[in-house]
Amino acid sequence: MTRPTHGGNLDWAVTLINCSNSAVVDFSASINPLGPPNSTIEAIIKGIKELDHYPNPDYPQFRQAIGQHHHIHPDWVLPSNGAAELLTWIAWEAHNLDGVLLPSPCFADYKRALNTFNIPFQSYPLEDLTRGLNQPTKNVALLVNNPHNPTGKLWDKKTLIPYLQEFPLVVIDEAFMDFLPPDEQQSLIDLIADYDNLIIVRSITKFYSLPALRIGYGITHPDRIKKWQQWRDPWSVNSLASLAGIEALKDTEFQQKTWQWLKPSRDKLRDDLAQIKGLKPLPSSANFILVETSIPSSQLQLELLQREQILIRDCLSFPELGEKYFRVAVRTQEENQRLTNAIARIYQEK
Amino acid sequence: MTRPTHGGNLDWAVTLINCSNSAVVDFSASINPLGPPNSTIEAIIKGIKELDHYPNPDYPQFRQAIGQHHHIHPDWVLPSNGAAELLTWIAWEAHNLDGVLLPSPCFADYKRALNTFNIPFQSYPLEDLTRGLNQPTKNVALLVNNPHNPTGKLWDKKTLIPYLQEFPLVVIDEAFMDFLPPDEQQSLIDLIADYDNLIIVRSITKFYSLPALRIGYGITHPDRIKKWQQWRDPWSVNSLASLAGIEALKDTEFQQKTWQWLKPSRDKLRDDLAQIKGLKPLPSSANFILVETSIPSSQLQLELLQREQILIRDCLSFPELGEKYFRVAVRTQEENQRLTNAIARIYQEK
Repeated sequence: MTRPTHGGNLDWAVTLINCSNSAVVDFSASINPLGPPNSTIEAIIKGIKELDHYPNPDYPQFRQAIGQHHHIHPDWVLPSNGAAELLTWIAWEAHNLDGVLLPSPCFADYKRALNTFNIPFQSYPLEDLTRGLNQPTKNVALLVNNPHNPTGKLWDKKTLIPYLQEFPLVVIDEAFMDFLPPDEQQSLIDLIADYDNLIIVRSITKFYSLPALRIGYGITHPDRIKKWQQWRDPWSVNSLASLAGIEALKDTEFQQKTWQWLKPSRDKLRDDLAQIKGLKPLPSSANFILVETSIPSSQLQLELLQREQILIRDCLSFPELGEKYFRVAVRTQEENQRLTNAIARIYQEK
Repeated sequence: MTRPTHGGNLDWAVTLINCSNSAVVDFSASINPLGPPNSTIEAIIKGIKELDHYPNPDYPQFRQAIGQHHHIHPDWVLPSNGAAELLTWIAWEAHNLDGVLLPSPCFADYKRALNTFNIPFQSYPLEDLTRGLNQPTKNVALLVNNPHNPTGKLWDKKTLIPYLQEFPLVVIDEAFMDFLPPDEQQSLIDLIADYDNLIIVRSITKFYSLPALRIGYGITHPDRIKKWQQWRDPWSVNSLASLAGIEALKDTEFQQKTWQWLKPSRDKLRDDLAQIKGLKPLPSSANFILVETSIPSSQLQLELLQREQILIRDCLSFPELGEKYFRVAVRTQEENQRLTNAIARIYQEK
């Protein structure tokens, strides 16, 4: 089995060390370790008896739930088969422009979607977003990932707002924004009615630990939502995803629990990693930490996997980072401790 | 709520007559009434505890199961988020050709996918496929739906084979082929290794009654499969669909039961409908029957719904058929009887 191009391929790891899925502690995918919430599991089980009829292509209940959650009208919302489906349609949306500006480094799936339709793209260094981008032409789309994967960097709303006036299309991928407590979020959702060139991408997968079910949504002007509904296949979101998504967004207890767990766990994990000579963990606003490593990341990954059944994310799918960085999800304090102990042992032996 | 553009929108029906989903007998979607099989439900329930990690983008177990089912190598197979997802990529595949030839009438989603990418299309009358198509140019793709929706017409393999030599791309949508017993099927799957311009579309949704879970697959040359995997998002098939699909294809008992139920039930339903003056049911090789009606189909649909809580499929999404036809799924003998009695009553009152 070849090393996966996307990170987080648990199958690759379990085949390599010949063990079961549950035996591996997976730090490679940035999934909330507290989920999935019971509310969503109950909704899924209830929904099984309704699998024998097609979903309503308008997904009215799910759109209603998303609208309520963000205090916007459901017409501005489109549920999707994970956030990744939206990237396909965003890329096609850009086919009438001269190209797209992407952050560097960035999630590999942005380039996948753009390459599909032969849309040109250029990269901008993350610092430039704060300093002010040099816009190469007036007719390109800007893609921002906030907070940013894999660095965990968060930009203020006020840094981003001027770009809404400069670019004909601005896509903000907020797949990890829900990991911030509401008073710290820097979402542009409340500006959606003011800018018809704004598209926001959200995920339900990561915060609610349901990546295998595929649940995301887009927020943008109703005209664009209608256009995308005509572009894509009518039933792209499965019914169990839709039912689970509705319950997830209502589960304020699970949301509170997650916010309470994340901050102290991330601070402690980062502090502990920083104690290891040879590692430089970056500050993060998300549920993962990017770490500069003096041992090449793919070597560290293999040793952790073979010796400790721990899977970290190498950064080979981010060409700018390569072997010099790895990414780890924040997990439970006990698991985080196991990770730092294991890495510390490997570093001590070098 | 406006009348749905796609047929089979149960939500529209239950809202209109203010009742529950289960109170409506749904003849509008062509779904096997014997399913879903228990084997698939058990697989889904088992899979719930694995929802917290991403599917493997290669879907190796599911591809293996499909390959075994059809006696082909898994490299020739791509699981998809329902057959509808494949139509999107087939349309994009055609963007370098001069256009696509579609059967008339045809499933509305073909045109949806082609319109998305501005691919020109022309229609051919069904009879021409048997007589010999007048090919307008050498550089168009041919799409055939076998058996054909909504007529239920089945073409022999030997009628179709010559077209594989004439057209640069031939797509055979076999979404309903599995409803025929193996010795009556006219699938082109066993020719797949001989023609790298052949794409076959299959559905698991309809035969195994799992439309809400979204399960289909494509069969074509491995080079095209690899290309499509790079085009589409990596995790487009949810894990529960994948697990259910694996069990479905192995469930020979359910397959036998379905073939034994379908033929006599369809014959009886067609005979009974033919007894009603004003109706002309067409012969069908699939699990549905297209019926010519002297009462306009949308009027008949409304009366059946309001008086009898029965939902039939009007043919407004097939512009060539319009108000002159409706389509009904073959259901259990008892339900079929209820349908014919109800239609007979309405016709008697006219």
